[in-house]
Amino acid sequence: MKLNRKDILGIQELSVQEIDLILETADSFIEVSTREIKKVPTLRGKTVINLFYEASTRTRTSFEIAAKRLSADTINISASTSSVVKGETLIDTAKNLEAMNPDVIVIRHSAAGAPHMLAGILRQSIINAGDGAHEHPTQALLDMMTIRAKRGRIAGLKVAIVGDIAHSRVARSNIHGLTKMGAQVCVSGPATMIPRGIEKMGVVVHMRIEEAIRDADIIMMLRIQTEREKQNIFPSLREYAQYFSLNRKNIGFARKDVLIMHPGPINRGVEISPDLADGPHSIILEQVTNGVAVRMALLYLLTGGTT
Amino acid sequence: MKLNRKDILGIQELSVQEIDLILETADSFIEVSTREIKKVPTLRGKTVINLFYEASTRTRTSFEIAAKRLSADTINISASTSSVVKGETLIDTAKNLEAMNPDVIVIRHSAAGAPHMLAGILRQSIINAGDGAHEHPTQALLDMMTIRAKRGRIAGLKVAIVGDIAHSRVARSNIHGLTKMGAQVCVSGPATMIPRGIEKMGVVVHMRIEEAIRDADIIMMLRIQTEREKQNIFPSLREYAQYFSLNRKNIGFARKDVLIMHPGPINRGVEISPDLADGPHSIILEQVTNGVAVRMALLYLLTGGTT
Amino acid sequence: MKLNRKDILGIQELSVQEIDLILETADSFIEVSTREIKKVPTLRGKTVINLFYEASTRTRTSFEIAAKRLSADTINISASTSSVVKGETLIDTAKNLEAMNPDVIVIRHSAAGAPHMLAGILRQSIINAGDGAHEHPTQALLDMMTIRAKRGRIAGLKVAIVGDIAHSRVARSNIHGLTKMGAQVCVSGPATMIPRGIEKMGVVVHMRIEEAIRDADIIMMLRIQTEREKQNIFPSLREYAQYFSLNRKNIGFARKDVLIMHPGPINRGVEISPDLADGPHSIILEQVTNGVAVRMALLYLLTGGTT
Repeated sequence: MKLNRKDILGIQELSVQEIDLILETADSFIEVSTREIKKVPTLRGKTVINLFYEASTRTRTSFEIAAKRLSADTINISASTSSVVKGETLIDTAKNLEAMNPDVIVIRHSAAGAPHMLAGILRQSIINAGDGAHEHPTQALLDMMTIRAKRGRIAGLKVAIVGDIAHSRVARSNIHGLTKMGAQVCVSGPATMIPRGIEKMGVVVHMRIEEAIRDADIIMMLRIQTEREKQNIFPSLREYAQYFSLNRKNIGFARKDVLIMHPGPINRGVEISPDLADGPHSIILEQVTNGVAVRMALLYLLTGGTT
Repeated sequence: MKLNRKDILGIQELSVQEIDLILETADSFIEVSTREIKKVPTLRGKTVINLFYEASTRTRTSFEIAAKRLSADTINISASTSSVVKGETLIDTAKNLEAMNPDVIVIRHSAAGAPHMLAGILRQSIINAGDGAHEHPTQALLDMMTIRAKRGRIAGLKVAIVGDIAHSRVARSNIHGLTKMGAQVCVSGPATMIPRGIEKMGVVVHMRIEEAIRDADIIMMLRIQTEREKQNIFPSLREYAQYFSLNRKNIGFARKDVLIMHPGPINRGVEISPDLADGPHSIILEQVTNGVAVRMALLYLLTGGTT
Repeated sequence: MKLNRKDILGIQELSVQEIDLILETADSFIEVSTREIKKVPTLRGKTVINLFYEASTRTRTSFEIAAKRLSADTINISASTSSVVKGETLIDTAKNLEAMNPDVIVIRHSAAGAPHMLAGILRQSIINAGDGAHEHPTQALLDMMTIRAKRGRIAGLKVAIVGDIAHSRVARSNIHGLTKMGAQVCVSGPATMIPRGIEKMGVVVHMRIEEAIRDADIIMMLRIQTEREKQNIFPSLREYAQYFSLNRKNIGFARKDVLIMHPGPINRGVEISPDLADGPHSIILEQVTNGVAVRMALLYLLTGGTT
């Protein structure tokens, strides 16, 4: 099977079949990272550019490791060292990169839609590594891969997503993906962090975390992006934690075998108590491991790989 | 044939034969970047260091891609992360790098002559990736390669270079190269941006852009380096654009088949109107593509490659 | 022989046999960097992460070149671009990296003990590339390698270490290593820069540089870390240089064939006069060359290599 798609811009436009194909391909790549020699020659002679307009250790490193384990040449460009400082437009930067004949451009940008704009202009494959508050499709794919690996399926599971739903690209991509794959998704967070009309995406809104996680199979805690929010949309981190933190007390509402996820980086004691983050329910680090495999799968499929 | 030269510091010191050798070698490398597997083992086990004291996406990326497609190990050092912050001299930094046995050091520095100083001290090959307002030889080589690819020759062509001639290393390198290769070069720009005595370099000065581009085969627009110029050597960008921008109106003075070049990044609407930058006369993106090939050629020739 | 050790955290815990094994392995790697093709396939498919919370051209570049010449995939993470800005703990950052299955993590951190903390938590090998004022074991190993290469032995030599002993991880690691290997070590520096009780480490303290270097085989000058010291623990650089700089005059107290070392970057005219730094006694650049070999040896031994 082949992915008939030039770019990965969001989960919204992926079909169930496409998601299945990506997740199965990712499953087959998980083994490469556990070998003695963690490298396959699949993308030898391909060039992957990581174009990051927002800082990110984990996502950039994950893409870089994925590309290198496939033997691709990888180029990192970060906003601070880029022509951006010289006032060049994003389109001009992208067209210049295109002219150097890369195969895949991975882009993270603070503006929603930036990857889509590039995808429409460039002949190369674009992977959205996070665009504003819009989508972060590789995160949702690694989340779905992790759920499937732990539970054998996604359909029929109850998934609670808790935190700043309104500003979270992780939430949006996961809502698109999980509902598409048949999960029952509910969200919770302070009223100022729940976007109006979110119910149209097929999710149930609960104002209290306890209701949201009741009988949940999966709890997905979102990062409070303290560095992004200048506007006072919540009174204080302390008050946020008091009402929406996942802790020993409220976890009891969920199923006994509930799995706890978080896209990282964690604000310990804000979104989640440290004992839960590090406890037996947590599959946070499996998410990270699977992230490398999902990105290997996408790089493989977008450069013409078949399964 | 072999390039009998340790370093590439400027176009000024290159002979016509050397320029021919480099351009012909570059022509042969253009194909590598269009292959399915864009990589040759030529520089396997060689180490190329990109030592950039000024930010630059395009030039650093171009050198890095060139080195990787030749299978060299590449190391990026940028001023912000370097020992420079600890007050080490450039010579000490360079001698330390030399002691780690790289094969080629690519340097960009705000001080004219910095690459020459290193070349005199280090046993390794030095490539000048831009030194102050002095020279940017790889840019001029890729420009000449592009002109030759489009017109079949350089000799006898009329080339107009427009903009801030005084502060432009691109202009200086191209004037050296184009006059050497037999082109007829004229320059134009605000009086404060035309260096005195520039005529001695073999060029004609025109105060008005219309005169400069009259019957031109090639128009090379220079970037206005707004970030460098604190001194008011021109009243405003707006006034600059009014008199020296290339646009639909004045382009009529040039030949019908005129080619438009720009070293990038472009200030759209300042040096050039967007429709011309993106229009059929523009060969700006071919310049970028050829840049990778020229840099591959130089890395190849400086490490002992023959044609 | 095999190094039975997961991590390299400090010289303090290494045995004489282990130091011998590392230095002999490093000797055998010195040749790789002088070959036409400076690369061996030893670490193909291994992933080495350079996690630098403090800027350093020389150490990061040395590790990166070492890893690449062994064919490892290398990933650079620097504090400025890392999740650190998002308030993630060091442990969370490290556990996330662990989940991506690297083989070795090289860490530099301003906090003493940071590498030890990681070593206790992660299954991967950790190499301390400098932790606060605590240890810099790879520097001491390359220093010992250099002394041995030039003098044939360490035991019985008189080594003077001069400068800011109290704040120098280089001094601490070298004192541990050199005394262990049988050298006679003395230290000198301003009284405020000599830690109390340093004699317990087996060294002799001299208040004047002339006494310290009298009959010395080796003089190791330390860098005055002007950027770190806000507290006025010395009156001025000028006064420091007047009393503790190594120069033409006081060098006469040492042996005629004395060797001068410095970990770099040098403050010329502060710790050492330029003529001595560049003169026949100086082996400063041999230190840098040997640094690549020592790091290759450690990467090789920690990933299971045998001699």
